[in-house]
Amino acid sequence: MVGAGQLARMTHPAAIALGSSLRVLAAAPDDPAALVCADVVPGAPDDLDALRALARGASAVTLDHEGVPTALLRTLVAEGVAVHPSPDALVHAQDKLVMRRALAGLSQIGMPQYVEVADADDVERLAARTGWPVVLKAVRGGYDGRGVWLLDGPDPDLVARLLAAGTPLMAEQAVAMRRELAVQVARSPHGQAAAWPVVETVQRDGQCVEVVAPAPDLAPRTVAAAQQLALRIAARLGVTGLLAVELFDTDGTADGLVVNELAMRPHNSGHWTIEGARTSQFEQHLRAVLDYPLGDTGLTAPAVVMANVLGGAPGGMSIDERLHHLFAAEPGAKVHLYGKQVRPGRKIGHVTVLGDDLDDCRARAARAAAWLAEGNPHD
Amino acid sequence: MVGAGQLARMTHPAAIALGSSLRVLAAAPDDPAALVCADVVPGAPDDLDALRALARGASAVTLDHEGVPTALLRTLVAEGVAVHPSPDALVHAQDKLVMRRALAGLSQIGMPQYVEVADADDVERLAARTGWPVVLKAVRGGYDGRGVWLLDGPDPDLVARLLAAGTPLMAEQAVAMRRELAVQVARSPHGQAAAWPVVETVQRDGQCVEVVAPAPDLAPRTVAAAQQLALRIAARLGVTGLLAVELFDTDGTADGLVVNELAMRPHNSGHWTIEGARTSQFEQHLRAVLDYPLGDTGLTAPAVVMANVLGGAPGGMSIDERLHHLFAAEPGAKVHLYGKQVRPGRKIGHVTVLGDDLDDCRARAARAAAWLAEGNPHD
Repeated sequence: MVGAGQLARMTHPAAIALGSSLRVLAAAPDDPAALVCADVVPGAPDDLDALRALARGASAVTLDHEGVPTALLRTLVAEGVAVHPSPDALVHAQDKLVMRRALAGLSQIGMPQYVEVADADDVERLAARTGWPVVLKAVRGGYDGRGVWLLDGPDPDLVARLLAAGTPLMAEQAVAMRRELAVQVARSPHGQAAAWPVVETVQRDGQCVEVVAPAPDLAPRTVAAAQQLALRIAARLGVTGLLAVELFDTDGTADGLVVNELAMRPHNSGHWTIEGARTSQFEQHLRAVLDYPLGDTGLTAPAVVMANVLGGAPGGMSIDERLHHLFAAEPGAKVHLYGKQVRPGRKIGHVTVLGDDLDDCRARAARAAAWLAEGNPHD
Repeated sequence: MVGAGQLARMTHPAAIALGSSLRVLAAAPDDPAALVCADVVPGAPDDLDALRALARGASAVTLDHEGVPTALLRTLVAEGVAVHPSPDALVHAQDKLVMRRALAGLSQIGMPQYVEVADADDVERLAARTGWPVVLKAVRGGYDGRGVWLLDGPDPDLVARLLAAGTPLMAEQAVAMRRELAVQVARSPHGQAAAWPVVETVQRDGQCVEVVAPAPDLAPRTVAAAQQLALRIAARLGVTGLLAVELFDTDGTADGLVVNELAMRPHNSGHWTIEGARTSQFEQHLRAVLDYPLGDTGLTAPAVVMANVLGGAPGGMSIDERLHHLFAAEPGAKVHLYGKQVRPGRKIGHVTVLGDDLDDCRARAARAAAWLAEGNPHD
């Protein structure tokens, strides 16, 4: 796996169970996965020699993040390495404009109106069609709210500054929506595919804070439409491994689903599957990448809620003390810590709560995450 | 963790989730846990310097197997290391005679009649009371059917030969039983304890082949009695970490439970908890050893069946091909492979199946294990 972040860290247990040996390419020795894996190749994801060292003897090469130059991955493919997802598929998760253009060619996939932005006039031309606000996006490299600007009106200075800094830009209609959903599928080189239940994702300041599985109050027809949409995209783009499709739910109907973003790897919106689904996204990713038949994606409980743990202000209780308090209050909370240094707002872990009642699970998960982040959720 | 077998290997994912860093003492570089852990100290469990290197900077030291000399563990304790279970508790899992004597002092714990064997006459004196057959046991070191001999009548030559070879012996009444059960509890240094549901264990040739959770057709009163029995033993012996109590079910009643063996570590009878309980034995062991509050021990499905995968004859399909076939036939089977070389009869992994119907799960688990062991369960 190229990259040794928390996604690689959480893939390792799935590899252990399957008797596979996960090797990770780590940019730093204290990367989350480098702390726990036996087989660590040091190196950056844009270093061809490091990628070659990673690939040596491996059954397949896959990714912890999308920041790997496709040119280098194409070199590996040319040298006979099985790379999943393939560079041809991956580019759709790296480049939002390439993604929009590819999906525009598919029927019945809801999309915002969008334009490539060569100058500030392009943004205003889009706004003339869609009205303000408009979403300005870096075509490449944005995540967790970075690389996204909500414009309430013309801002030619911002656009000019970003373009001058070399940031390729696009603009999208700001879709009026009721909430955000996500649907995750796995697809194997053999072409088998499987979808998990559709989830609701809750963002704060552009960052995912909560995932609710299954998405509440979603008509079975809309669920099926979202899953079909993701399966069609995976097949059309030739995705191997995991695909997460982030969706806007504009009106609760199948026709009102609008594609926001794609990710081609295990994804934050699927962390709930570790305990909440019969097959976790991490196991399924390995099964897909290794071309094993895929696993059962059913839920293990009627309600599953995952809450991200964001680093709080420095000082206060140690993580160890926080775990004590959390486990005393919530014996069933499932904690995943990533071994990261705490910084305010940084994702340092997540917690999952399972139960029969969604509202109860949401309250418990939020409390649990607050315990881990702050030490005392009642402060 | 002293030892790097499959128990340490399966503890690693639980440590990863908790943000803990598991260090293992590995006798060989290809030990199951040494293949997957980032922090491996080479050395034997009877090497004090290796144990000291393992313990350096660790919050606690615990065990993958009971074959660690208590004298060395006592040295670590004297040097300020937190050892769980403590040497005083551990000796009851190392020495069957010490265990019998300790439990004999507890009221309402069913036990077979037993004698220490200094010569063949001791065996015959026991048989005069209990009738033949009698079970001859090595007081120390036996497991998986090794170190146990069922005697249908006097066999003074065997007894003399074993004693001459330096094997301390005891003899026990061969208990007439309906089946074998196991109950597992965790206990923290703080004194908190928690029990999982009672399971039925099925042995073949002295080796566990199947674990069924919950044990079918067991009266709630008997379940409670078995859990209470294990909790009392854990408290009385001062166990910290996990305790597995293997039981004979002689007549289905609470009074008919007879203690067979004890183990003070994660145990084969608890592998089903990885997917089948809200808190796995491996997570719970770490929580107990680190003195965190313990986790929810509830089931995740009405029926859970684990089947051990024993190595088959050499040749035939590769493990990779076997996984393909198994996953195609059973998308929900949860596979755990230990990274061991295959040898006939050697435990190389296990598979767990969850569902609503116990008989169906048993059939599916047996089929899944056969696929992995043999490649084709219908041969």
